[in-house]
Amino acid sequence: MSADQAAALIPAGSNVGMSGFTGSGHPKLVPQALAARIEAEHAAGRPFKVNVWTGASTAPELDGALAKVGGMGQRLPFQSDPICRDKINAGEVDYLDIHLSHVAQQAWFGFLGPMQVAVVEVLGILPDGRLIPSAAVGNNKTWLDIADKVILEVNSLPPAEMEGMHDIYYGTAIPPRRLPINLTQPIERIGEPYLRVDPAKVIAVVPTHHGDRDTAFAKPDAVSSQIAAHIIDFLAHEVKVGRLPKAMLPLQSGVGNVANAVLAGLLDGPFDDLLGFTEVLQDGMLELIKRGKMAAASATAISLSRDALKEFTDNIGFYRERIVLRPQEISNHPELVRRLGVIAMNAMIEADIYGNINSTHIMGSSMMNGIGGSGDFARNGYLSFFVTPSVAKGGQVSCIVPMVSHVDHTEHDTQIIVTEQGLADLRGLAPRQRAQVIIDKCAHPDWRPLLQDYFDRARQKGGQHTPHILGEALSWHQRCLDTGSMRV
Amino acid sequence: MSADQAAALIPAGSNVGMSGFTGSGHPKLVPQALAARIEAEHAAGRPFKVNVWTGASTAPELDGALAKVGGMGQRLPFQSDPICRDKINAGEVDYLDIHLSHVAQQAWFGFLGPMQVAVVEVLGILPDGRLIPSAAVGNNKTWLDIADKVILEVNSLPPAEMEGMHDIYYGTAIPPRRLPINLTQPIERIGEPYLRVDPAKVIAVVPTHHGDRDTAFAKPDAVSSQIAAHIIDFLAHEVKVGRLPKAMLPLQSGVGNVANAVLAGLLDGPFDDLLGFTEVLQDGMLELIKRGKMAAASATAISLSRDALKEFTDNIGFYRERIVLRPQEISNHPELVRRLGVIAMNAMIEADIYGNINSTHIMGSSMMNGIGGSGDFARNGYLSFFVTPSVAKGGQVSCIVPMVSHVDHTEHDTQIIVTEQGLADLRGLAPRQRAQVIIDKCAHPDWRPLLQDYFDRARQKGGQHTPHILGEALSWHQRCLDTGSMRV
Ligand SMILES: CC(C)(COP(=O)(O)OP(=O)(O)OC[C@H]1O[C@@H](n2cnc3c(N)ncnc32)[C@H](O)[C@@H]1OP(=O)(O)O)[C@@H](O)C(=O)NCCC(=O)NCCS
Ligand SMILES: CC(C)(COP(=O)(O)OP(=O)(O)OC[C@H]1O[C@@H](n2cnc3c(N)ncnc32)[C@H](O)[C@@H]1OP(=O)(O)O)[C@@H](O)C(=O)NCCC(=O)NCCS
Repeated sequence: MSADQAAALIPAGSNVGMSGFTGSGHPKLVPQALAARIEAEHAAGRPFKVNVWTGASTAPELDGALAKVGGMGQRLPFQSDPICRDKINAGEVDYLDIHLSHVAQQAWFGFLGPMQVAVVEVLGILPDGRLIPSAAVGNNKTWLDIADKVILEVNSLPPAEMEGMHDIYYGTAIPPRRLPINLTQPIERIGEPYLRVDPAKVIAVVPTHHGDRDTAFAKPDAVSSQIAAHIIDFLAHEVKVGRLPKAMLPLQSGVGNVANAVLAGLLDGPFDDLLGFTEVLQDGMLELIKRGKMAAASATAISLSRDALKEFTDNIGFYRERIVLRPQEISNHPELVRRLGVIAMNAMIEADIYGNINSTHIMGSSMMNGIGGSGDFARNGYLSFFVTPSVAKGGQVSCIVPMVSHVDHTEHDTQIIVTEQGLADLRGLAPRQRAQVIIDKCAHPDWRPLLQDYFDRARQKGGQHTPHILGEALSWHQRCLDTGSMRV
Repeated sequence: MSADQAAALIPAGSNVGMSGFTGSGHPKLVPQALAARIEAEHAAGRPFKVNVWTGASTAPELDGALAKVGGMGQRLPFQSDPICRDKINAGEVDYLDIHLSHVAQQAWFGFLGPMQVAVVEVLGILPDGRLIPSAAVGNNKTWLDIADKVILEVNSLPPAEMEGMHDIYYGTAIPPRRLPINLTQPIERIGEPYLRVDPAKVIAVVPTHHGDRDTAFAKPDAVSSQIAAHIIDFLAHEVKVGRLPKAMLPLQSGVGNVANAVLAGLLDGPFDDLLGFTEVLQDGMLELIKRGKMAAASATAISLSRDALKEFTDNIGFYRERIVLRPQEISNHPELVRRLGVIAMNAMIEADIYGNINSTHIMGSSMMNGIGGSGDFARNGYLSFFVTPSVAKGGQVSCIVPMVSHVDHTEHDTQIIVTEQGLADLRGLAPRQRAQVIIDKCAHPDWRPLLQDYFDRARQKGGQHTPHILGEALSWHQRCLDTGSMRV
């Protein structure tokens, strides 16, 4: 069936579950055809929106296309598309920013409403109807289970040898019928290589031959290399004092340039036989596997730059033995992240002197991308790092502030904060102690005296557990909104 | 050995792991003897402090006594003692407010430093050295495991029939050797009834015959009864639409008067055969069991008023079949809370219009009690309620505010907010939608127009994902600090 014909089967106002995770595995044609249809409907004066549920971020041909034509009512759970972001921040799209490990179950519980249609990219359909998953599993298992109708895009571009790389676990259930998830090693297999779908629900099959998003990462710069160096020193020290096994523990690495640079730093680090238990496998981790520094990795998606994708495709036989792709409810599952003792490394927008973390909001109101899986890993991991350059916007903005303008990870969940200036190990510290360490180790010298001044003056006032001057706590952000700079 | 002799064995500056959870199971004599010793040392001009790690809050004879003499350096992970609270807020005690499910593992990982001494209340010592746990298990298993030396208080007051009520799980481990925790029903037994200790580490055994804290709860008033009624209506509706099984799911109930009142409300509710999977079993849950509304409950501690304690003791044969006491790493374990699909109900200090929750800080700086296990249950539960009266301080303070002055639970973790005014079901709503529902349903009529005005004006400005006016967001709190009232 053509994408246009398939798109015509999606009712206005429906909740549509789409495949796709960090720019890979999303449907390539139907969303664009749907966008065209919506544009025509709007031109004819007829309202038409759909609610778009995915695995995580997708690409211009999904989020971009639908947002651009004003066809998106609701969007969940993670996005990073510039047009989609603008529509969210213009108040035109209702964006639900949900922990990635919570999405499938909330949909299954019925908390998000019924799903009328799923649009899922696969690499093939077996004679018995089972599906070969694509480069991203994401929430596809759940979407295929709960949707009333299913549209499949069958993409013939990715290497056929990806068949068998996936581990789709069908053992989850709704309480009170849940059982332990018997995974005890990052790349153990507990499921089956194929997705199931009730053939009676499949209303369209659309052939495609299109690549995933393959944007290149910024080359690690001095700042991110320094961040990486601080982390590696710290990990080596933890091994030395016996708080980490020599082979380390499974690594999770977040999205963004800095997170990728940290992985690059591990290439020359003292650790071998690393394991990955992460959500999205990007260039940095692929390189670790290629160079034999990482033995194997579990993820829910592979999202690579053009060069890395070529490496992956050319050597698929090597990588398919070393990478397992799972549903995101498994890749990010609190039970598993805690059991395996994952070392979590996520980028952030800003931290405050008490260790609260803002991963999502610019100046308290504008959404950047979303929390993604950072909460799943930061809360449940063995160690959790949050990293950022100490300043943003050419130095006009300090990423260490008196009080964050939005909280995604609370002081209770933050262990280690790293900037190019240094590393603050907050384990076992009370708030006032944390503040001094964060100011001393992480703040940029331009901002350090101002933070110290705030902290000192706050200590002259009221409650001393978490000293604050509430009338001033967010003034740095307000000034930045007013003048474009946090500077006085 | 006498308590004084035992207290003399605790070195200045040591990390001391004490038993005790919500006023029960704490050592009754050694902490007081230690406080007397510290007072004498201070009088002689010698500095003397210890760091006090417990299960959760204790009682005047532990937290109160040690705080009063200035003998507490560090305190973790939860407290509710007025003197201890004052010392924290005076900046004299370093308080670490840690998720209750994280404490044992962080200590075991070595993140908090070595533990020189454990002081643990038990009900008896078996001939082979194993210990009969008391009314609170808390972190005792871990304290006994990791402490260099152990002091035991053997309390002969609690009923001997408590022997066998406990389920101490010895299957936890440090990553990478962790395995699934095979608990699939709230009161299933997976461990053994006794605590283990290396007899070579036991340096003192002190006999006691003292009761636990037995303060009465406030009788449910109109406000808390209305909150309970909203919750029960909501749960009944969820059953009706098929999002909850008829027998419900296991209940967790937090600390405080309001949480207790909600349980009282269930006495006359339409639900039978309830199960509890909670952290502390208080009067409300005991009454549900007594009246046959709740079949059984799992907890880490029993903490009762004087009257309820008499009921429990008089009918211990009945209750010991229906209550299992576990280590708090199990009672609060994310793996189990999620698997069992717990319905979490916790009190809070304030919520903001976007659903961020403050459970711990008065006006952003002063610690009230601590986060306790609320994060373990709110993040991982099937449903999560946060409850509060809509106003505090005789109406001078609105508990629904533009922006909370401290965040313990983020918008990503909040599902349902309840005040006596009504219930806001936030599932599936984006921030702007949440704000309108919270203002309409939960705010007190005195404050509703002011919240609406803030929200309306915030929407005239900048980013529309989470509209805020940063210069004004915390002004209600600042005004309250300045004038004693949030009113203009
Ligand atoms: C936090 C996050 C946005 C950082 O991404 P990154 O690519 O490493 O960071 P960058 O330094 O390039 O910053 C991204 C943007 O935020 C801006 N920014 C960063 N810090 C800022 C601050 N404190 N104040 C204002 N803007 C800031 C940057 O200027 C940049 O904006 P621009 O593109 O307009 O120049 C990204 O990691 C993220 O979305 N994280 C949340 C989800 C997550 O953690 N996922 C991991 C598990 S899935
Ligand atoms: C939040 C919490 C303090 C509420 O306790 P409670 O007994 O139901 O609540 P109360 O209404 O009696 O309030 C307690 C105090 O806080 C004050 N308070 C409540 N809301 C307030 C607000 N918004 N602003 C200022 N003060 C407030 C009350 O006035 C009262 O102070 P007072 O004793 O000086 O009069 C308590 O539940 C708690 O500590 N929770 C956190 C831990 C937790 O959730 N544990 C559960 C799992 S362990």
